[in-house]
Amino acid sequence: METTLRVGILGGSGYTGVELLRILAGHPRAEVTVVTSRQAAGQPVADMFPSLRGWVDLEFEEPDTDRLAEGCDLVFCGVPHGVAMHQVPALLDRGVRVVDLSADFRIADRAVYEEWYKETHAAPAWLERAVYGLPEVNTPAIRDAALVANPGCYPTAVQLAFLPLLEAGVISREGMIADAKSGASGGGREAKTHLLLAEASDSMSAYGVAGHRHLPEIEQGLSRAAGESVALTFVPHLAPMIRGIHADCYALLDGEAGAGLQDLFEARFGGSPFVDVMPEGSHPGTRSVRGSNFCRLAVHRPRGGRQVVVLSVIDNLVKGAAGQAVQNMNLMFGLPEEAGLDTPPMQP
Amino acid sequence: METTLRVGILGGSGYTGVELLRILAGHPRAEVTVVTSRQAAGQPVADMFPSLRGWVDLEFEEPDTDRLAEGCDLVFCGVPHGVAMHQVPALLDRGVRVVDLSADFRIADRAVYEEWYKETHAAPAWLERAVYGLPEVNTPAIRDAALVANPGCYPTAVQLAFLPLLEAGVISREGMIADAKSGASGGGREAKTHLLLAEASDSMSAYGVAGHRHLPEIEQGLSRAAGESVALTFVPHLAPMIRGIHADCYALLDGEAGAGLQDLFEARFGGSPFVDVMPEGSHPGTRSVRGSNFCRLAVHRPRGGRQVVVLSVIDNLVKGAAGQAVQNMNLMFGLPEEAGLDTPPMQP
Amino acid sequence: METTLRVGILGGSGYTGVELLRILAGHPRAEVTVVTSRQAAGQPVADMFPSLRGWVDLEFEEPDTDRLAEGCDLVFCGVPHGVAMHQVPALLDRGVRVVDLSADFRIADRAVYEEWYKETHAAPAWLERAVYGLPEVNTPAIRDAALVANPGCYPTAVQLAFLPLLEAGVISREGMIADAKSGASGGGREAKTHLLLAEASDSMSAYGVAGHRHLPEIEQGLSRAAGESVALTFVPHLAPMIRGIHADCYALLDGEAGAGLQDLFEARFGGSPFVDVMPEGSHPGTRSVRGSNFCRLAVHRPRGGRQVVVLSVIDNLVKGAAGQAVQNMNLMFGLPEEAGLDTPPMQP
Amino acid sequence: METTLRVGILGGSGYTGVELLRILAGHPRAEVTVVTSRQAAGQPVADMFPSLRGWVDLEFEEPDTDRLAEGCDLVFCGVPHGVAMHQVPALLDRGVRVVDLSADFRIADRAVYEEWYKETHAAPAWLERAVYGLPEVNTPAIRDAALVANPGCYPTAVQLAFLPLLEAGVISREGMIADAKSGASGGGREAKTHLLLAEASDSMSAYGVAGHRHLPEIEQGLSRAAGESVALTFVPHLAPMIRGIHADCYALLDGEAGAGLQDLFEARFGGSPFVDVMPEGSHPGTRSVRGSNFCRLAVHRPRGGRQVVVLSVIDNLVKGAAGQAVQNMNLMFGLPEEAGLDTPPMQP
Repeated sequence: METTLRVGILGGSGYTGVELLRILAGHPRAEVTVVTSRQAAGQPVADMFPSLRGWVDLEFEEPDTDRLAEGCDLVFCGVPHGVAMHQVPALLDRGVRVVDLSADFRIADRAVYEEWYKETHAAPAWLERAVYGLPEVNTPAIRDAALVANPGCYPTAVQLAFLPLLEAGVISREGMIADAKSGASGGGREAKTHLLLAEASDSMSAYGVAGHRHLPEIEQGLSRAAGESVALTFVPHLAPMIRGIHADCYALLDGEAGAGLQDLFEARFGGSPFVDVMPEGSHPGTRSVRGSNFCRLAVHRPRGGRQVVVLSVIDNLVKGAAGQAVQNMNLMFGLPEEAGLDTPPMQP
Repeated sequence: METTLRVGILGGSGYTGVELLRILAGHPRAEVTVVTSRQAAGQPVADMFPSLRGWVDLEFEEPDTDRLAEGCDLVFCGVPHGVAMHQVPALLDRGVRVVDLSADFRIADRAVYEEWYKETHAAPAWLERAVYGLPEVNTPAIRDAALVANPGCYPTAVQLAFLPLLEAGVISREGMIADAKSGASGGGREAKTHLLLAEASDSMSAYGVAGHRHLPEIEQGLSRAAGESVALTFVPHLAPMIRGIHADCYALLDGEAGAGLQDLFEARFGGSPFVDVMPEGSHPGTRSVRGSNFCRLAVHRPRGGRQVVVLSVIDNLVKGAAGQAVQNMNLMFGLPEEAGLDTPPMQP
Repeated sequence: METTLRVGILGGSGYTGVELLRILAGHPRAEVTVVTSRQAAGQPVADMFPSLRGWVDLEFEEPDTDRLAEGCDLVFCGVPHGVAMHQVPALLDRGVRVVDLSADFRIADRAVYEEWYKETHAAPAWLERAVYGLPEVNTPAIRDAALVANPGCYPTAVQLAFLPLLEAGVISREGMIADAKSGASGGGREAKTHLLLAEASDSMSAYGVAGHRHLPEIEQGLSRAAGESVALTFVPHLAPMIRGIHADCYALLDGEAGAGLQDLFEARFGGSPFVDVMPEGSHPGTRSVRGSNFCRLAVHRPRGGRQVVVLSVIDNLVKGAAGQAVQNMNLMFGLPEEAGLDTPPMQP
Repeated sequence: METTLRVGILGGSGYTGVELLRILAGHPRAEVTVVTSRQAAGQPVADMFPSLRGWVDLEFEEPDTDRLAEGCDLVFCGVPHGVAMHQVPALLDRGVRVVDLSADFRIADRAVYEEWYKETHAAPAWLERAVYGLPEVNTPAIRDAALVANPGCYPTAVQLAFLPLLEAGVISREGMIADAKSGASGGGREAKTHLLLAEASDSMSAYGVAGHRHLPEIEQGLSRAAGESVALTFVPHLAPMIRGIHADCYALLDGEAGAGLQDLFEARFGGSPFVDVMPEGSHPGTRSVRGSNFCRLAVHRPRGGRQVVVLSVIDNLVKGAAGQAVQNMNLMFGLPEEAGLDTPPMQP
């Protein structure tokens, strides 16, 4: 008989939390046993999220290491960066495996982390042992990891677009650009004026052009793929939608490399169940992945020139957060990679 | 070993079609074998709906009675009213069971149909045999039906709100109002200027106050529940959202009937897996049912007066169309009522 | 030579403030000389609201009675209820006329105010002298007022719809309902989770069915029109749009009153430049008034029955707040009623 | 006494038409005397566009050269490309001056036009005499022009961003990219499935990466500014909003040119009333120009590298169409450049 994985969610009152609960409600082999939230402790989860009425009977609890360690085989950590690195080690020390959705264990170079996040890292030993959880790159290490650092939403969309080009060594190091548009849920569930419907709806704006915290994470991944240091111009945008990232990734081809781009992408992701390389000439919309763990990619080379354009779309809360976290969990526990994630996107 | 139901979709290129395909992709006991579309014949389904890439390998076919009759145990009919009544009988005559999502078989009184739809009914014999597919009212008849007339979206939301009050005989016949707001997908996938994003977004308007085609269908259902003729004021609205119906249903209580309203609703729907009577004082949002087959109801009696207000929310494409159709299919074939429909709503 | 009115805005960093600044930028006879904001003091107005770059050169200032009294002929008060009643009297005592956009001076019956707003009224003497600023009812009193209480957004839309019916005495006291839908800007510019784009977009929900603070204000106006106490069922909704109120107002006709409803409305508002009675059978959308001071009304009597339905649309920030405030200012200072307000709505 | 300009609109039932009518309703020196529309002839303009009730009393008329020539000093041509070139010459021959909002007279090289628009040009002589109506480049020629070709929406936003860089000769010819996001009104008012609210809302997608018709128009303008042929990678996107273009324009600096970029932009547009160079570090949103004729620009040079990023936002229907057309009219007739265009953007 198959056993059921006991799962905890540390910090479950944000969008990551409710999305994990939605996905895990349909997971055949995992069951959520604990959900914590400092502010909402004592409140039934389904009171805060009526969408989960009938699906989740739990109450939010105060975070408690003993409770999590005893009741869970794996904990998803959904607390913010700066908090995660203080709470995760105690769980790991008790033998619980962790998928951390914060940024605290994503950047291997502690100095870079501390520069961008303006904090001294509280768990450098675990930072060294953390595995970066992009399954399309790191599956073997993820399987064995005690601690998986789940990638950010922008980094997921952008890395998947550039990886085949960098690994094949066909693009120039200069002129790499990611122009990325995100839905407002990427800004979290905490109330902020600029994310109000009245502000963000029916409008579009860039932000963080001078430097966004996802940039070092992306450059780390791109540099690993290239085998050398890679710099990127990264321009994130707030788009007037709930979910979705649309990343346009630009690079200049080196030499005569352009002919086989479509094949290159199809070969690179042939074994990746959640990366869909679209037919040539495609323009995938974020709608086509909404609610699902897919990343759809389309490769273009306008007028046959040096410029290559890769369109990359994901649902920021699924492949960009909770879905990828479940994909990592599946790999860590030897479950089918698609368990709990085999539902089609919602259209319209 | 369990057999798999072979399902056809007649007219599958609209929102009803793509939603049936999404739901059935996750159904454990049904498989879509044929999807027809006159305009799109020959085109892969996943080309028109990239959300279904990897889920649906079929091409749209020309509608063909032989093909449907031989290849399917049940056909969902998604062609428009006026067309369905010409195409459905041939299937029924071949022994295929049908769930018709058009309006053609919903209104038992042929004269009323012909008045509102301005067409002579082409299949009056089948109209007499059709079963109105609101499972919360008609489950026994649905189980045995050859032809189920799947209710309209507004009629589903409005009837479920009024049924307990009418069946219990606690409201006046005068002053019944349904003020209902629908997302733009209720207008279908055919291009119409007033449904353009540039027109319908960031705006709100009523329509059809003088008389909407869903009104006779609603009044038929309400009259059956009341055991006498019931008239309703029905004001539909186009709301600037994709999916969802929010129906506010107003009635004046007769006598001292108000005390037990919450109990009345909970008792009425205790055995209905898809009707969720919310706690007193609730205000369910359409978001709380998006993508799911739930109807959530909340009963209010402001300041303890005669006026009762029932808030009723559904996803117009699921409980208001494709989901209810699958619920009917499940009943017709003795499957668990929730098969294929047991996924939580999507939030945010 | 015509003089220019010197105008101050007390509490100018919310939506009321920015909308007053937008409207007054185009006013031929008024100039904003002072804008206050405690939190934003010292910040250029155009930094917070880039839409005003080139139009407003002022900085937000700390609120200061002397400064306002000396620099302004009129002050618009945009601070929240509970605060306004503490700040407005000092200005009035210095001879500055005030249009207060908070709720503090709207409800003449102090006990009712204190019941709904849970505060002891701090300026009962001024409450007695305040004039309710609905120009379609109160123009003579507004002209002479020192203090005008600018109506709420819902109350404006709902009162204009019911006034002709109540004044003419053609409707029953029972069964009066206002089912009103508001854009998210009605909730203000302060960050609140339920008003986030990710929460409020693509969804619809009612709120405050048990009792909304605008209800006593509406009932006060309706009762005055009727000459006797009138009770209303009021159900407000949050609609997924930025601006706009769509109020559906329902009443039951007494006797044979229905024939001349269209004439009744046209006659009632014949002299009101900002109330547009649409042709019979119309369904005005909120889009048709966006950015303008119009209220558009359409009167329906479905199937010729007792039920009358008045559709009423306004822009909640213009006719529902800042525009009406400017209309009141114009009346108070003998300017043309439409000064600064004669711009067409924005479509699409 | 000042005379009033008599203005006609040829093809006035689309978004360009209604926006011209909105702007001209507030123009102090121009009056619309004729509006044509083949499909809507005989219908009052305010019936189709209720937002114009009280502002426009005209009916749509059949297009008629005599009527336009006799009744108008200037005609705005709002018919589609391919049609305009057949209708405009007759007006010009009668001495009426024309601002054409179609693409028919924008591209000076007839062969390029015919390649991209798949039509033989019907009026090559007038094509030679047409003046490209980007006032920030061409004011002197516009003043004297009989025929002004009003720029496209994307071309306006993109050219204004690149002009200072190209004129100053500080960027490389390789790696120029415009990643542009447009609201759905850019696709026009004609019903198309992909522009339905249910399709386009809450989603984002690129289109035309292989080649969009605005590309040759943009490259023509950029090449003129550079004094040599310039190639651009242009990726347009459909963003889920009504109005607005957000263009991110990327280029690689040549040599040590970066230091004075902010000054360069401020100097270039110092005399341009409708181009607002924002302070360093700014991220203008499309909301900040909604309903206005402004283009706001922000220049960035992330981490001080070679890559320059210019953010450019306009309202596609104003500076990208009708507003710029009125700006051109003002120049052609010696009116103040800002006449009719001096209203602030609408926020929120």
